[in-house]
Amino acid sequence: MELHIVILAAGKGTRMYSALPKVLHRIGGKAMLARVVETAQSLQPQGIHVVVGHGKDAVLAQLGHYPVNWVAQTEQLGTGHALKTALPHLPPHGRTLVLYGDVPLIDADTLRGLLAAAGEGVALLTDVADNPHGYGRIIRAADGTVAAIVEEKDADAAQKAIKEINTGIFVLPNTHLSAWLGALQSNNAQGEYYLTDVVSLARASGVAVSPVAVRAAHLAAGVNNKNQLAALERVYQHEQAQALMTAGLTLRDPSRFDLRGTLAHGRDVAVDVNCVFEGECVLGDNVSVGANCVLINANIGAGTVIAPFSHLENCTVGAGAHIGPYARLRPKAVLDDGVHIGNFVEVKNSRIGRGSKANHLSYIGDAQIGERSNIGAGTITCNYDGVNKHKTVIGDEVRVGSGTMIVAPVEIQDRATTGAGSVITKTCPANKLTLGRARQQTIEHWVRPEKTDK
Amino acid sequence: MELHIVILAAGKGTRMYSALPKVLHRIGGKAMLARVVETAQSLQPQGIHVVVGHGKDAVLAQLGHYPVNWVAQTEQLGTGHALKTALPHLPPHGRTLVLYGDVPLIDADTLRGLLAAAGEGVALLTDVADNPHGYGRIIRAADGTVAAIVEEKDADAAQKAIKEINTGIFVLPNTHLSAWLGALQSNNAQGEYYLTDVVSLARASGVAVSPVAVRAAHLAAGVNNKNQLAALERVYQHEQAQALMTAGLTLRDPSRFDLRGTLAHGRDVAVDVNCVFEGECVLGDNVSVGANCVLINANIGAGTVIAPFSHLENCTVGAGAHIGPYARLRPKAVLDDGVHIGNFVEVKNSRIGRGSKANHLSYIGDAQIGERSNIGAGTITCNYDGVNKHKTVIGDEVRVGSGTMIVAPVEIQDRATTGAGSVITKTCPANKLTLGRARQQTIEHWVRPEKTDK
Amino acid sequence: MELHIVILAAGKGTRMYSALPKVLHRIGGKAMLARVVETAQSLQPQGIHVVVGHGKDAVLAQLGHYPVNWVAQTEQLGTGHALKTALPHLPPHGRTLVLYGDVPLIDADTLRGLLAAAGEGVALLTDVADNPHGYGRIIRAADGTVAAIVEEKDADAAQKAIKEINTGIFVLPNTHLSAWLGALQSNNAQGEYYLTDVVSLARASGVAVSPVAVRAAHLAAGVNNKNQLAALERVYQHEQAQALMTAGLTLRDPSRFDLRGTLAHGRDVAVDVNCVFEGECVLGDNVSVGANCVLINANIGAGTVIAPFSHLENCTVGAGAHIGPYARLRPKAVLDDGVHIGNFVEVKNSRIGRGSKANHLSYIGDAQIGERSNIGAGTITCNYDGVNKHKTVIGDEVRVGSGTMIVAPVEIQDRATTGAGSVITKTCPANKLTLGRARQQTIEHWVRPEKTDK
Repeated sequence: MELHIVILAAGKGTRMYSALPKVLHRIGGKAMLARVVETAQSLQPQGIHVVVGHGKDAVLAQLGHYPVNWVAQTEQLGTGHALKTALPHLPPHGRTLVLYGDVPLIDADTLRGLLAAAGEGVALLTDVADNPHGYGRIIRAADGTVAAIVEEKDADAAQKAIKEINTGIFVLPNTHLSAWLGALQSNNAQGEYYLTDVVSLARASGVAVSPVAVRAAHLAAGVNNKNQLAALERVYQHEQAQALMTAGLTLRDPSRFDLRGTLAHGRDVAVDVNCVFEGECVLGDNVSVGANCVLINANIGAGTVIAPFSHLENCTVGAGAHIGPYARLRPKAVLDDGVHIGNFVEVKNSRIGRGSKANHLSYIGDAQIGERSNIGAGTITCNYDGVNKHKTVIGDEVRVGSGTMIVAPVEIQDRATTGAGSVITKTCPANKLTLGRARQQTIEHWVRPEKTDK
Repeated sequence: MELHIVILAAGKGTRMYSALPKVLHRIGGKAMLARVVETAQSLQPQGIHVVVGHGKDAVLAQLGHYPVNWVAQTEQLGTGHALKTALPHLPPHGRTLVLYGDVPLIDADTLRGLLAAAGEGVALLTDVADNPHGYGRIIRAADGTVAAIVEEKDADAAQKAIKEINTGIFVLPNTHLSAWLGALQSNNAQGEYYLTDVVSLARASGVAVSPVAVRAAHLAAGVNNKNQLAALERVYQHEQAQALMTAGLTLRDPSRFDLRGTLAHGRDVAVDVNCVFEGECVLGDNVSVGANCVLINANIGAGTVIAPFSHLENCTVGAGAHIGPYARLRPKAVLDDGVHIGNFVEVKNSRIGRGSKANHLSYIGDAQIGERSNIGAGTITCNYDGVNKHKTVIGDEVRVGSGTMIVAPVEIQDRATTGAGSVITKTCPANKLTLGRARQQTIEHWVRPEKTDK
Repeated sequence: MELHIVILAAGKGTRMYSALPKVLHRIGGKAMLARVVETAQSLQPQGIHVVVGHGKDAVLAQLGHYPVNWVAQTEQLGTGHALKTALPHLPPHGRTLVLYGDVPLIDADTLRGLLAAAGEGVALLTDVADNPHGYGRIIRAADGTVAAIVEEKDADAAQKAIKEINTGIFVLPNTHLSAWLGALQSNNAQGEYYLTDVVSLARASGVAVSPVAVRAAHLAAGVNNKNQLAALERVYQHEQAQALMTAGLTLRDPSRFDLRGTLAHGRDVAVDVNCVFEGECVLGDNVSVGANCVLINANIGAGTVIAPFSHLENCTVGAGAHIGPYARLRPKAVLDDGVHIGNFVEVKNSRIGRGSKANHLSYIGDAQIGERSNIGAGTITCNYDGVNKHKTVIGDEVRVGSGTMIVAPVEIQDRATTGAGSVITKTCPANKLTLGRARQQTIEHWVRPEKTDK
């Protein structure tokens, strides 16, 4: 049976207090609507139609690359009206699944179950809530199907005690869709067309409405404010953490772990408390990530240790390396096996060869460093003349003295040594010591400054 | 009807194991007693009387500026005795609300409800506890008023099953106060005068005791040890986080957010995990604060990005700036729009003009920097001669070379450039390159040090 | 009565997905098996026998120093078989307590209660689980003893409703042990010998099996995957935090506190959020540890402030010192009273005298610094010539200028001053200014680099 999915994503999200359309707010680093679209895609429907309205341009600018049918709703007159906007794009046969751009954690398993329950009729996803206040209650008929949805304001005491609530997620038969949507009325307090009214229209048409209770509340939970956004973020992070641990990742505290993207990991990988991963990260076997690290699109080789407080972004680190604490690897830092990058060291757009070390207070930018070289504390590649960036080339087994200013473009050849505190502006030849240093002198009769009165 | 509030704050807090009087321990960065005083003030009573005893001097040293009547209790003989100590300061008419300096989260709404329930009689705040063990149980009379409070040790099995407990927070009519407090007995195990005994005295006087159940347990929860202090701290932080999110602030994890003061924020402000805010902080529209930042009295302009691991204190940052990661802004750092302060850079008591940048490993203290200037990596303003601090002045569009030591007092004029590794002790004239640098030389027959035996 | 303890620790832990034997995975920084061994030791038994199999060599390499009898189980044929492997080492009298290397949080109190309940018979530790699914249910006889343990797959509906479950922790009388273990059958689905079958054998022998319900589920909880490892880690950390707070330590957030070792603390010690302590740490009276610090074997004197983002390892700090933010103290850093170590400063294998300061961007390694000396920003002790480390000696009241490179071995004598940006290679005599600095010069007709086209 042909399946079309309509995702309602036109709402403003007033209580988000944001210039961003509600459906662009993120869970796990990805826009809520993108999550719903991807879940919809996983069901391989014949069509996905996204109804957009408020912030349509922003939505299309960010998510327009998804191969879906974007349908503009110029007026927001309720969920029934929104679905009606998509009606011209739906075939007269098959069925339609209605999802929401602000219900981000709905999963394919749940939806497959809902489709199975619907058959050629209607199915409605429901939730059983501890506190159903404010939600439409599900009135079950004697045969277990949905007899009606009663809104809070219309519910009597007995109905208010019902804990099964409407989630708004429906499967509907397209044969009836046009008639039912055409029959919706807006004679209610808000003057809106409510999709929930299809329940009574379906029953009037002799079509059963099958309820399917959702496995867990968060799957059908909507986001209307930042509180709910944060709550779903934590559910999402919790589930990711549990899945990673089940696959063998060691997390010292799964409630202090954030992954906003993907994390591939080998065996015996341990992540200490309070780390944040973004983009696509890869951690090889036996990698250890210390407390309070931030990794963004970082690819880390086997056995490498990332010490606490390190910040790695768009970089590659080989095997058996030692990074941090307080190391910052910036984009295009490529470190070979066994490299050591220590505290207060920044590396940017540089290739560092096997076994080389820069352990203290250094800036390495636009450099190519060979193997087994040692970069002394306080070394700076002066790659920027104020307008242009220049390259530094350092060979193998070089010893750069502490506090060396390497004024690029310049080369320090294999096995060269530079003296501490030198400014290097010309080639340092191989095997030799090069330095630039003023003679040390002592001022005999110098008088120390004394405290001045203020 | 005239209202007086007596706050009992004389206890020692033995189980806090602290030299600090119990009521000075902090929730959300503020002494518990200060919170109770401020809540009391919000009710606009005719008088606030704080009964202090243990650590009285320390309490007055820290909170003596609050416009309340400080009453010394020289002996601590129980809550009834403490209230009696304040009796001479209370008028013979009106009513008295009794609060506690170690019950920090009581709120004005709850107290208004209690006052309303009291009328001209007595009202008692109660709590319904899952585990009432150890607390005085509320025995209700047939008419719903409080018949008695039965202490744990005196309770029979049926009374022990009662879950409604005494919080100790009372509204009492002053007309009876003197008589009731005078009638309290200390013939109990502890030899103390218990305020709870006023319940039976009130009933004997024909005055009804109206119970009011508190909305949430934490509002009436007392602090006797560090465990309870931490528990209330987390409740307080949770409530603050929820309120900020309701107002539109994005928090990636509300359970990893600490605010010890106030946080004003614009629209579309996002705070990543594990940040701490202290004092008065202001975040403009579209500000983003990265993971693990500490902000203390920081005022941040619209659109500015604070990258992870930054520490900002008593500073002002303009709009569209980029700070961090690992940036430290110290007191009197004032940064104009578009300033960039990067990793391992410290700024103190300095004004940095629009669009200027100091991106790597620098110390900027007691400096004034113009617009669009670039401070090279490893630059240090040598502001301290060992006894006195001196000022550095840097103009517009200056390019300070990497590793420049700027020995203050000194000036680098507009569009001047300094050579990498220079020590600047005199004025660098505008538009020119100034440097101090030894000639680079290579030692031809130098022999590298080799590993010595140890 | 003689007591022997057998700890079963031979399992592979397939679902840990680890090259490490399961019992070597850590809780609170210590291998699970080591925890169980230490708990066993606290009962002062006549013998402790640890049955090892998978990863035996790794277990012995790490824990072989414990004075226990290591028993090799070459085939893993179930818990009954494992205990049988230890049988030759057990005397024919007294009793045997069976523990598990992957049930790490069992405590001595619980075990003492179990031993008391056993007398000369059998005792079984049980747990009452909200969700007993998957566990063996305890069938109680009319007299309250254990009639049988029924496994999930064999349980009828009534038995499945039983919430009391088997933990596997037994006390058994040695007089019967050989007979019972010899009578175990492996005619079950897994073909294994189950220790649980001793219950029916005991009853058949007329020996009562006394159930003892465990105080809290985590005490008897086993670890089969990383999810359970993390869950017990958090329980363990929570309990440690609560115990420390009860003893007076202030924790801003006990759920963001990790201690993997021991923490001794004085009065009025406060630890801010998200700190990690490892090894043996000592915090004197009035010490304050800021947010996000990592301390490993750190001994901190009274009144010292550790500011946020500091990383201290194997170091000693005196009283009234100020460390951080972003300070890194490495092994053998020994700081006297009143020392200040500031941001982006690393100290390694150095002694720093009373009142001396290194506040900014410095590296101090293999140095001895006297009292009241000031180390300017950007100072580096150049202790490494590429192969050997050398020592720096700095006297009292020395003022090291900013950006000084101190090329060890070298001495800066008492009250000496060095000029900013100097390279010091020879002794700096006392009381005098020593410097090495090129003359500052301005290039008159220099032309600034301009942006090149790329």
